[in-house]
Amino acid sequence: MKLLAMALLLAATICSAQQSGDFQPSATNVWGADYPKVDSTGRVQVRIKAPDASKVRLNFWSGPKVDMEKQSDGFWTVTTTPLVPGFHYYTVIVDGAEVADPGTHGYFGGGKDASGVEVPEPGSTYYSAQDVPHGQVREVWYNSKVTGTWRHALVYLPPNYDTQTKVRYPVLYLQHGGGEDETGWIRQAHANFILDNLIAAKSCKPMIVVMAYGYARRAGEVPPDLTGKPFGSPEMMKAMQDMFAAFEDDLTQVLIPYVDFTFRTVADRDHRAMAGLSMGGMQAFQITLDHLDLFSYIGGFSGAGGMLLFANRNLDPKTDFNGAFADPAAFAKKVHLLWLGVGTKEPERMRAGIQKLHTSLDDANIKHVFYESPGTDHEWQTWRRDLKDFAPRLF
Amino acid sequence: MKLLAMALLLAATICSAQQSGDFQPSATNVWGADYPKVDSTGRVQVRIKAPDASKVRLNFWSGPKVDMEKQSDGFWTVTTTPLVPGFHYYTVIVDGAEVADPGTHGYFGGGKDASGVEVPEPGSTYYSAQDVPHGQVREVWYNSKVTGTWRHALVYLPPNYDTQTKVRYPVLYLQHGGGEDETGWIRQAHANFILDNLIAAKSCKPMIVVMAYGYARRAGEVPPDLTGKPFGSPEMMKAMQDMFAAFEDDLTQVLIPYVDFTFRTVADRDHRAMAGLSMGGMQAFQITLDHLDLFSYIGGFSGAGGMLLFANRNLDPKTDFNGAFADPAAFAKKVHLLWLGVGTKEPERMRAGIQKLHTSLDDANIKHVFYESPGTDHEWQTWRRDLKDFAPRLF
Repeated sequence: MKLLAMALLLAATICSAQQSGDFQPSATNVWGADYPKVDSTGRVQVRIKAPDASKVRLNFWSGPKVDMEKQSDGFWTVTTTPLVPGFHYYTVIVDGAEVADPGTHGYFGGGKDASGVEVPEPGSTYYSAQDVPHGQVREVWYNSKVTGTWRHALVYLPPNYDTQTKVRYPVLYLQHGGGEDETGWIRQAHANFILDNLIAAKSCKPMIVVMAYGYARRAGEVPPDLTGKPFGSPEMMKAMQDMFAAFEDDLTQVLIPYVDFTFRTVADRDHRAMAGLSMGGMQAFQITLDHLDLFSYIGGFSGAGGMLLFANRNLDPKTDFNGAFADPAAFAKKVHLLWLGVGTKEPERMRAGIQKLHTSLDDANIKHVFYESPGTDHEWQTWRRDLKDFAPRLF
Repeated sequence: MKLLAMALLLAATICSAQQSGDFQPSATNVWGADYPKVDSTGRVQVRIKAPDASKVRLNFWSGPKVDMEKQSDGFWTVTTTPLVPGFHYYTVIVDGAEVADPGTHGYFGGGKDASGVEVPEPGSTYYSAQDVPHGQVREVWYNSKVTGTWRHALVYLPPNYDTQTKVRYPVLYLQHGGGEDETGWIRQAHANFILDNLIAAKSCKPMIVVMAYGYARRAGEVPPDLTGKPFGSPEMMKAMQDMFAAFEDDLTQVLIPYVDFTFRTVADRDHRAMAGLSMGGMQAFQITLDHLDLFSYIGGFSGAGGMLLFANRNLDPKTDFNGAFADPAAFAKKVHLLWLGVGTKEPERMRAGIQKLHTSLDDANIKHVFYESPGTDHEWQTWRRDLKDFAPRLF
């Protein structure tokens, strides 16, 4: 009986078992789900039903990978060591199948809807909903002549956008990372609440934030067959560059004109910024430096330097990025902000790459901001902090 | 190496293997995922990696539940018999763990992010993106004094809402079903495209559509412990009624005032409708008939009749719903539309319940529309068709 099933589901969602001790359900949980739980030291308890499995493993992408223990009721459980505050992606591996824990909402990362837990950061309210005026997030669909498809983007509009109908706003284009999508900055990072809180505190200017889908393929283009082509192979690098180039054209030729037509923007380079995390930071560097006619603020969150990060070499200011860094005085005049950030606990190669860029830029006399997020990895807590530092410097 | 992992993921998403025969990746798939696939007869192929599992089962919630077959590469595959057109939820059961297939986006149903496939309906373009003016969907957060929490809702605004700044619009409150959430009408049903297309064809009036989160618990209320209380037990029914009552107060006392304050609505009962599917249809009936001062259009999509569906008895027009149906002439004057719908392939109890209500209403001389969706089950294709029939009758 469907009706019965529905009613039982309702009963299940209405009912919520008692909590024990310090552990509380994660803020990421679906209605009525007790697990995963998080305690005040950052430990996470996961519980998943898999009565016939012979091995279940908990898999935090930047954190513990531990075997879970089977209980007599068919559930598998485990409690982790403390995790640093912030949002953490995870999956469970059930007899070799890597899947999401149905106890949490899905968060798009790693190319799929994964699970996530939120470990609260004591005293940090900057990324949660406060009793301040709230902006809205709009879903828009635009028909891209570059890709030949309808594309979806999210657009944050600051508080009072609807009532102050004569005001025009600057725009920040803010990109997700590889394997993520246009929803990440809202769902995982709560960028809307970060902006709401900064704007309420008059720490940053009211601005529009556009979050685009960072993958693109040109209309009619056949995807390359990369079977057997290793990382770093010319074929793979070309495929990535093709994708980046298609996205660059979509953003600059279709999305920006669409946004400037649809919203009350100040449609000039002095009022347009771009930033992104990881892959999005690489894209932000490439796109802004290719189009200094369109952008004057640049942010790379754990991804500054673009393809340089793969090449693992110092910046050559004369030739890299079309020579954008060749003339420091001209660059300073043109670019109001160049911002690099990285977490101190990120993988060595990422940290070294960003550090190398930072040093190269200093050597080339290119003024920039270099921000290190203390104790955080290649994860959203780093990028929330990045946005909190970056946004007040804009416009 | 994180960077390497990111790059490999990029490679995986750039690469897309060749399709064979008539099978095409489902429109619900994540970027780069070849499976699940759908062919022109409605058959679905699912493929999932679970190298160490001993049993993997494919579980369509309103469709086939079949064992998958293990291949030598550690993947399990199966091809279903043809499914009717529309959106279908499914999960895979890996050694007893019911989880989502990571090949598709997550669609919130059954209290979790499940997988879904889209079987195209030949010739049906009414729920897909067409080259017509598009409305926008806004995410809003409101602080509910009823629940003591920030609540999230989606709001569809018709094309040109931003440019025709003097125009005010009627409002349809449109609810999801049990186990679903406020995202279902957009993600699963594409309600925004249905409205865009109807409005472009001048088949319905431009309107605002508000999609609320249909669960609520009063501030400070301790959830009841329903352990061991069977379906239909007084405790369970009371818990459900409490939840419905809390949602009713949230909607009528907080959300409607918020919407009327925030958007350019026509804020009177003649320009306010409410409909919903399944649990949402039950809520729509209860809330509108409790508040005929607020609503004048009522839609029940596979859920009309509210608690009557559980009671499994005929309507008593004198006493049910506060006697709203006692005086047919007064009702007809007050309620501009009473609309019931059900799919012909829905479970017998649901069909019989709606049919009984339809007959009871006829017997009571209550004018109403009764719509049967041919060949569809308790699923989104029924509700897409419902919305397509319902919306043009409004305002």
